[in-house]
Amino acid sequence: MDYPGLNDLIKRALLEDIGHQDITTAHLISPELQATGIFYAKSDGILAGIEVSQAVFKFLDPAIVFEKVKIDGERIAPGDEIAIVKGAAATLLTGERTALNFLQRLSGIATKTRGMVQLIEPYKAQLVDTRKTTPGLRFLEKYAVKTGGGRNHRIGLFDGVIIKDNHIRAAGGIIPAVKKLRCHIPITVKIEVEVENLEELKQALQAGADIIMLDNMDTDTMQQAVLMADGKALLEASGGINEKTITTVAQTGVDYISSGALTHSAVSLDISFDITEVSE
Amino acid sequence: MDYPGLNDLIKRALLEDIGHQDITTAHLISPELQATGIFYAKSDGILAGIEVSQAVFKFLDPAIVFEKVKIDGERIAPGDEIAIVKGAAATLLTGERTALNFLQRLSGIATKTRGMVQLIEPYKAQLVDTRKTTPGLRFLEKYAVKTGGGRNHRIGLFDGVIIKDNHIRAAGGIIPAVKKLRCHIPITVKIEVEVENLEELKQALQAGADIIMLDNMDTDTMQQAVLMADGKALLEASGGINEKTITTVAQTGVDYISSGALTHSAVSLDISFDITEVSE
Amino acid sequence: MDYPGLNDLIKRALLEDIGHQDITTAHLISPELQATGIFYAKSDGILAGIEVSQAVFKFLDPAIVFEKVKIDGERIAPGDEIAIVKGAAATLLTGERTALNFLQRLSGIATKTRGMVQLIEPYKAQLVDTRKTTPGLRFLEKYAVKTGGGRNHRIGLFDGVIIKDNHIRAAGGIIPAVKKLRCHIPITVKIEVEVENLEELKQALQAGADIIMLDNMDTDTMQQAVLMADGKALLEASGGINEKTITTVAQTGVDYISSGALTHSAVSLDISFDITEVSE
Amino acid sequence: MDYPGLNDLIKRALLEDIGHQDITTAHLISPELQATGIFYAKSDGILAGIEVSQAVFKFLDPAIVFEKVKIDGERIAPGDEIAIVKGAAATLLTGERTALNFLQRLSGIATKTRGMVQLIEPYKAQLVDTRKTTPGLRFLEKYAVKTGGGRNHRIGLFDGVIIKDNHIRAAGGIIPAVKKLRCHIPITVKIEVEVENLEELKQALQAGADIIMLDNMDTDTMQQAVLMADGKALLEASGGINEKTITTVAQTGVDYISSGALTHSAVSLDISFDITEVSE
Amino acid sequence: MDYPGLNDLIKRALLEDIGHQDITTAHLISPELQATGIFYAKSDGILAGIEVSQAVFKFLDPAIVFEKVKIDGERIAPGDEIAIVKGAAATLLTGERTALNFLQRLSGIATKTRGMVQLIEPYKAQLVDTRKTTPGLRFLEKYAVKTGGGRNHRIGLFDGVIIKDNHIRAAGGIIPAVKKLRCHIPITVKIEVEVENLEELKQALQAGADIIMLDNMDTDTMQQAVLMADGKALLEASGGINEKTITTVAQTGVDYISSGALTHSAVSLDISFDITEVSE
Amino acid sequence: MDYPGLNDLIKRALLEDIGHQDITTAHLISPELQATGIFYAKSDGILAGIEVSQAVFKFLDPAIVFEKVKIDGERIAPGDEIAIVKGAAATLLTGERTALNFLQRLSGIATKTRGMVQLIEPYKAQLVDTRKTTPGLRFLEKYAVKTGGGRNHRIGLFDGVIIKDNHIRAAGGIIPAVKKLRCHIPITVKIEVEVENLEELKQALQAGADIIMLDNMDTDTMQQAVLMADGKALLEASGGINEKTITTVAQTGVDYISSGALTHSAVSLDISFDITEVSE
Repeated sequence: MDYPGLNDLIKRALLEDIGHQDITTAHLISPELQATGIFYAKSDGILAGIEVSQAVFKFLDPAIVFEKVKIDGERIAPGDEIAIVKGAAATLLTGERTALNFLQRLSGIATKTRGMVQLIEPYKAQLVDTRKTTPGLRFLEKYAVKTGGGRNHRIGLFDGVIIKDNHIRAAGGIIPAVKKLRCHIPITVKIEVEVENLEELKQALQAGADIIMLDNMDTDTMQQAVLMADGKALLEASGGINEKTITTVAQTGVDYISSGALTHSAVSLDISFDITEVSE
Repeated sequence: MDYPGLNDLIKRALLEDIGHQDITTAHLISPELQATGIFYAKSDGILAGIEVSQAVFKFLDPAIVFEKVKIDGERIAPGDEIAIVKGAAATLLTGERTALNFLQRLSGIATKTRGMVQLIEPYKAQLVDTRKTTPGLRFLEKYAVKTGGGRNHRIGLFDGVIIKDNHIRAAGGIIPAVKKLRCHIPITVKIEVEVENLEELKQALQAGADIIMLDNMDTDTMQQAVLMADGKALLEASGGINEKTITTVAQTGVDYISSGALTHSAVSLDISFDITEVSE
Repeated sequence: MDYPGLNDLIKRALLEDIGHQDITTAHLISPELQATGIFYAKSDGILAGIEVSQAVFKFLDPAIVFEKVKIDGERIAPGDEIAIVKGAAATLLTGERTALNFLQRLSGIATKTRGMVQLIEPYKAQLVDTRKTTPGLRFLEKYAVKTGGGRNHRIGLFDGVIIKDNHIRAAGGIIPAVKKLRCHIPITVKIEVEVENLEELKQALQAGADIIMLDNMDTDTMQQAVLMADGKALLEASGGINEKTITTVAQTGVDYISSGALTHSAVSLDISFDITEVSE
Repeated sequence: MDYPGLNDLIKRALLEDIGHQDITTAHLISPELQATGIFYAKSDGILAGIEVSQAVFKFLDPAIVFEKVKIDGERIAPGDEIAIVKGAAATLLTGERTALNFLQRLSGIATKTRGMVQLIEPYKAQLVDTRKTTPGLRFLEKYAVKTGGGRNHRIGLFDGVIIKDNHIRAAGGIIPAVKKLRCHIPITVKIEVEVENLEELKQALQAGADIIMLDNMDTDTMQQAVLMADGKALLEASGGINEKTITTVAQTGVDYISSGALTHSAVSLDISFDITEVSE
Repeated sequence: MDYPGLNDLIKRALLEDIGHQDITTAHLISPELQATGIFYAKSDGILAGIEVSQAVFKFLDPAIVFEKVKIDGERIAPGDEIAIVKGAAATLLTGERTALNFLQRLSGIATKTRGMVQLIEPYKAQLVDTRKTTPGLRFLEKYAVKTGGGRNHRIGLFDGVIIKDNHIRAAGGIIPAVKKLRCHIPITVKIEVEVENLEELKQALQAGADIIMLDNMDTDTMQQAVLMADGKALLEASGGINEKTITTVAQTGVDYISSGALTHSAVSLDISFDITEVSE
Repeated sequence: MDYPGLNDLIKRALLEDIGHQDITTAHLISPELQATGIFYAKSDGILAGIEVSQAVFKFLDPAIVFEKVKIDGERIAPGDEIAIVKGAAATLLTGERTALNFLQRLSGIATKTRGMVQLIEPYKAQLVDTRKTTPGLRFLEKYAVKTGGGRNHRIGLFDGVIIKDNHIRAAGGIIPAVKKLRCHIPITVKIEVEVENLEELKQALQAGADIIMLDNMDTDTMQQAVLMADGKALLEASGGINEKTITTVAQTGVDYISSGALTHSAVSLDISFDITEVSE
């Protein structure tokens, strides 16, 4: 995971934690003191963000040696070594919390995603994320969803289209809305329409929507929707998806199931960083 | 909640969502179209971040009118109106997701905090947060903890001191570590020492630590620690704090109980934004 | 045209021109002196960027009054008034060059685009841009293409896919390349494949590509390609497109014709800014 | 060409193209795959910007090896190798367009400049640029003019003075304007006055202007101006300069001829980047 | 004093002081509380920076009313009111220190400058500053020098030329150095040469230098230099200039006297800010 | 001295000096020319900022070799070598002024601090700084105070509390003010109260303030204050502290003596940079 703006994100994270100085470490730890730190898993899950954690230490000190034992997407279990970090003890102490904050949050999302992906493995449906992400972490959280086995819906308002009720109303209906958009958006972007019932679905199909979001439909209606669409558009189930409901939804035959909870309700995965060897 | 860097944070959040353009809204919604949107609570909780949400819309368009019905710290229940937003329909549609992402996450943290604060209300102990926050959101998440009734531990490595095992080892013991720090840090900063057992507690007391963190102690040992400290230092219980354990810990008589879960394991509070009236 | 980062772009443009001070104006023009300036067309063309020009003056001084006579997309002819700007003479003098630099370049692109669009109006083909834009102005230049009547291809590497020869070789062929991408990219993104001959076209069709780029094909081969594709994918003609060749290419029946020259070889449209009335 | 802000410009250029990810390359090209790419000239011209192109690849990956075959200012002809780039195939694919966008634009300016410089080689006059540059690229475009053999006029409003009609009117005449400025601007800055006729020229000479701009004068008047100035000030011809008119203007004996077209009407030079060898 | 980057400078100054919050004011002062604050002079001097101070408060809260009693360049004496600030008490308390830090430093420079300017008033020589300014405050400190009655030497390395000994050595002498530079720098920039003795002065005059810096010459030699130059170049005395030496130097007849002490050895002028009326 | 934002500060300092180019060096010094430069002390003092100066050169060119002869905190005397810098002559020439500007200012502060610290060495009192620092240099200037042997008061408004008269008035007295703050600020922050007389001191002691600032008290009153406090709070003397008054104040037995003059009235220490050896 790397993109031209990642370093700025890491710098901001470090700045808000370190400010002008780690006043404890600066006065107690000699710059010459060397140490080794190890990231350990403390619970079961899927690793995501190990390269971001590496970049955190590298930002503070390019001389840090960071050895990955696990890579993103791998399953980890309590006690597993994840990575070994060697270098100045002061750097390890100052950077560990920020590195962990990234790693634990992203692994938490990957783990939650993997859990839901497994529930629908027998079915055609693919699990997709939403824009309900933490401000500032959109790219990393969407990366964590992919790492967990999910797929990304649009990254933001710029690279995908979802025509919702207010858009439809303003455009005078689903068909004029799709028609108008089709000749204005970049030619590489698909058009998705959000529908609430089968009548709207019919219009969206007629309009030639590429993807149709079935918003908060019960599973019976969804099943009818699948029959009605008959492969002419991809169908996305949305609304109230969780570990209890997802299998039933997948059984309807929809193509995608989207879940905001993947990002807005994931909790951090328990990972620790222990500094083991210290030497001058 | 306002600070000189908040606008930059909001700009980044909007940029990662909007990029160069909300391509759906830009082509379907006339800039003249006016609308009213309402934030509604969809579950019980404590509101936090309403001014940040306001600032999101104001960033996009200073002409937006934002009327708060609830303010930060207030309890909200399903169906409660939280705020009313009036202005260009395009601005409401483009900004709502980012505004909600802030509001839901911060309210989630405030709600989780309030829940734990209530459990220890009969006791002296105060609930405090940690540095286990989402990268980039440190200030806002710490604000949300305060809004929920908790207290802030140090904001970062720059404004507080916690002398941990590696610092102690490098300095040659608790007493030399405290002594060395005391004459180097800003005079307004208290010194906290992390201890693992009563022997270390004794040394920390002797060193004159202002606050002593009892790290992962069982409640019996904590009780002894409280007796031993006898008010000469403030005691902070840390490690494995959750809704099940917190009351027992509070009963030991410690001054502070810190919980990383307040921020790393809070989930978003369910809040929606409905656009109700639209007119040219 | 507005997006969260536009103001930063304008600030950088002003900074590189003004630096610490417009040393001529600062010492010769009283801050109280008021003036009126008028943007005039000095040649025929299509206006683009008038709101950016407005934002330039507003950045320097929010009290500036900017009255648009023409709006983006309108045809302008020599002598036409485009906009009237009223306010501090110093602001007008300091900002005019930067405002013009944006306006002339964007209008130049819109004008070139309109010229080529008109040549293919009788045909199905739509004119699309490329990523061959001026560094830093991608969004504005793509906006200018739309303003001129063209359409946008992908904005960047993040919101669209073009599988080129090196990608194909690395993936082991067109079919495996498309297959692999289809399950990794955001679900809202179409897949385009670049092909050099009819054999590759056949494979791309078989792979289910959404769009197929016919790279540097002669018009006979393009015509065969149109027959072969038979509406199963959208076809984009690319390579060597200019005012002389575009009509012939459009006659082949392709869906899109892309031209880098729209942005990399457009020259500024001649527009001037005259300060007419000055008063204390 | 290097200055403290260049890296920021490159980062912004890459960010607007790559966003969060090159979604094609990220999923099809293994990070281990190595490749060699070659920049080739596809038309005649003057190279400018090769170090900027190098910096683009280095920004993405410092391990890239970039070997210049031609350097800035050299003449290139179709088929000439310009530079050889070795490193990760993914980096080459992701960076090539941005590197080319800089290189082609800057070489286009250098080429146009060289063409006009050659037309006036027999004469004393030197070709100079203007502030009519692309917003954000001022420094690079002025560098390209120098690379093509032209000279720079002031970089911006901060490092040079041109007293224009509005300044003159506000100051109450050419002589008071020059007098006032002379004791307020940095002592290292020359004073230029723009004049429309010989009467104004006389005043500018009397005021002791260092440089006098002859604005849109016919060549007869210019010749008289040269006689009248008699070396007491440097004379700059300005307005309507192009490949057809420049020689006649140079023959008048002026010192400088300035041309906005060098930057606002240069088109990209045709240069390609071919990836030739690929290996694991 | 205003330039496109000033607001960023103010934001950084406020951020380093306020961080996430003025934790005293935030918890003790109601946002509704209104107050009036007054800037008073506490010693004699020249005011500089009042608009920067205004901008500091405006940055925090655009609703602040700031009424200037004195303007930049005016003489102030103990007890003089300088400006009156009205608005939220919290904003006044949070912003006062940063506003004062700017105002006191800039006024200190203006005051020191005025003092030295007065010493040489009977003579032709003008006092000029150097590049020995506080990092980050170059523009403001040079502005303060102008406000105090001094003149600016070049702002930085970009807008003026001083050919020093190392440049001369590398170019093979003064004459080749000047010759080479003359055809490469922007045409609006004068050329200055630093000389150590009369032999070098002779060469610099022969080379046609616009300004010649007499570096650490004794006054006798300077006088000879003035005679030798005979108005063919402007002469700048440099080195060891202070309140005791400046008059003697001015008597030699040089055109400019430069002093690094104006900026590197000015101390803050004593100005206070008193909050006088407070009301809900 | 290093913190995540230091590089940005250095970049801004270089940008304001270099702009787009050091136009003298760029045209006269070959990029291949190598040189050695030496920092020399030209007066007595305490060195501070040598690592910042190193970072300035490293920012321009990571290949520069920078060898420290003295380190921060060491005493230097005229003629002492401080550091040796080897690398491209152009880099040395372009970077020297910015490196010196940091080094001279910070060493000036450290030197002034050391001088005052020595005056009070026989006493308990420690010398502390204030927030009266140069905008943008807060962290570096506070570092210089520490380097000179002083201590830091709060870094900014975020990491320390001083309850002043306006806060007290708004809160309804010292005791309610302290009480209110105690449960809202981070638990690691001490509370300081500013008092003007012994009556207020009594209240501050009663309120349990950690530190009490004796504002502009005469030394007799201070002595009484020391007796009254009797170690229950730390006492800080403030107001009118200078080299003449500080010893008398220290004799009163206060714990801290704060002086704004350490930063607002320090002048640069005289240090030079000589380029000695130059070779191709």
